[in-house]
Amino acid sequence: MTERHEIPARKGLALSVAKGKTIKIINTHGTQVVDTWAFVRDDLAEFMSMEHSRAGMNRLTPKLGDMLLTNHREPILKVVEDTSGGVHDTFIAACDIHRYRGLGCAGYHDNCQDNLWEGMAAAGFQAPETPSPLNVFMNIPWDLEGRIDWKPPVSTPGSYLALEAQRDLVIAFSACPQDIVPINGAARTPVEAHVEIV
Amino acid sequence: MTERHEIPARKGLALSVAKGKTIKIINTHGTQVVDTWAFVRDDLAEFMSMEHSRAGMNRLTPKLGDMLLTNHREPILKVVEDTSGGVHDTFIAACDIHRYRGLGCAGYHDNCQDNLWEGMAAAGFQAPETPSPLNVFMNIPWDLEGRIDWKPPVSTPGSYLALEAQRDLVIAFSACPQDIVPINGAARTPVEAHVEIV
Repeated sequence: MTERHEIPARKGLALSVAKGKTIKIINTHGTQVVDTWAFVRDDLAEFMSMEHSRAGMNRLTPKLGDMLLTNHREPILKVVEDTSGGVHDTFIAACDIHRYRGLGCAGYHDNCQDNLWEGMAAAGFQAPETPSPLNVFMNIPWDLEGRIDWKPPVSTPGSYLALEAQRDLVIAFSACPQDIVPINGAARTPVEAHVEIV
Repeated sequence: MTERHEIPARKGLALSVAKGKTIKIINTHGTQVVDTWAFVRDDLAEFMSMEHSRAGMNRLTPKLGDMLLTNHREPILKVVEDTSGGVHDTFIAACDIHRYRGLGCAGYHDNCQDNLWEGMAAAGFQAPETPSPLNVFMNIPWDLEGRIDWKPPVSTPGSYLALEAQRDLVIAFSACPQDIVPINGAARTPVEAHVEIV
C-alpha cells in the first residue's frame, strides 16, 4: 500500500497524490534539504502559499498539527508526524540560477526553481508561477532582532516529515543542489532523499 | 520637485517611478498599514520578492540601509530613511476576498490583492501575479518559538519610510482595508495615506 520514490540528488520530482493520503518526506542521509510545493490538481493556480500559511497558523514555521494553506486560504497539507526535529523553513526563496551567479558560478548550476518546473513537466503538469517553497529540513534560525542564519539540518538519517493531503494535489520536491553554503550539511554534498505515499 | 499623491482609504494606487527617485510612504494618521509592491517597468515579470529579499538581507524585515531584491536577486528598492519606528512586515500575504470570507463577511469587502490589480490597471499595467507584499507599518511581532501576533502600527502621524528606486519601476500601494482585526489601529478604521516622489 506504500509507494516509495527517490528524489534524486540535485534534482526534482512531482507526484499526483489523492486527498487523504499521507506523504512522508524522508531525510535518507539526514543532511538534505527538500524544497516542497503543492498545487491543487484540478486548478494548479491554487497552491500552497507560505505567506497565507503563516497568517493562518499564526506561526513562522509549521509544527505537528499545523495546517498549511493555499493562496485561497484553504487547507492543503496537514503536519501529522515529524521525527526530524521539527526544523523547517518558510522564509527563503527556492535557489535559482541568479543565486548561483551571485555565489560566483559562471556556468549552469542545478537549482530548486528549475527542478520544480522540470519535475512538474516530467509528470505532465506546468507550474503557474514559482511559489515560495516549504523548505523541509532547512535550518534558518532567527532572533528577536530579525537576524537570520544558515545552518545544517538538525534531522537524523531516516527521519521524516509526514503531511496529509487535504485535496487531490500535485506535490513537487527538489533535493536542493546547494553545494556552496552548508545548508545541506557541513560536507556541502547534496544527496538523494525519498518520499513514501501511504 | 516633489509629487504628492493620496492612497485613498481602502483603495490602491500605482505609480511609474524613475531609477534614483526617492519614494516616501507617509503614515498620514499614524495608524494605517500600506501594502507595497514594486515591478521592474520594462519587465513586470521581475518584481520585488520578500522571499528573495530576506535571503539577501539576512533579515526578516528591512532596516535602514537594507536593500530589497527582485525575484532575479537584483536590487530594486533601498531603505534610505525611516522615521516610523522601523516596524514593517514581510511574513503576511495581502488580504484578499478569501481572508474576509474567513472572517465572516458575506458580501464583497475591499482587499489589498484586488487593490494591487485595480491600482495597476488604472495606471495602465497588469501585475503578472500577486507577489507577497512589503507590508509597510504593519506590526507582526514574532518570538523565538515562531509564534506571531497581530498588533497596531507603532508609527506616529506623518512619519514615513523612504525607499530609493534602484530601477525604473512601477510601484503599487494599497491602504489596507482591514477593519475587523486591529492591524490598522485599535479603532479598526482604515484611512488614507500619502506618497511623495522626491
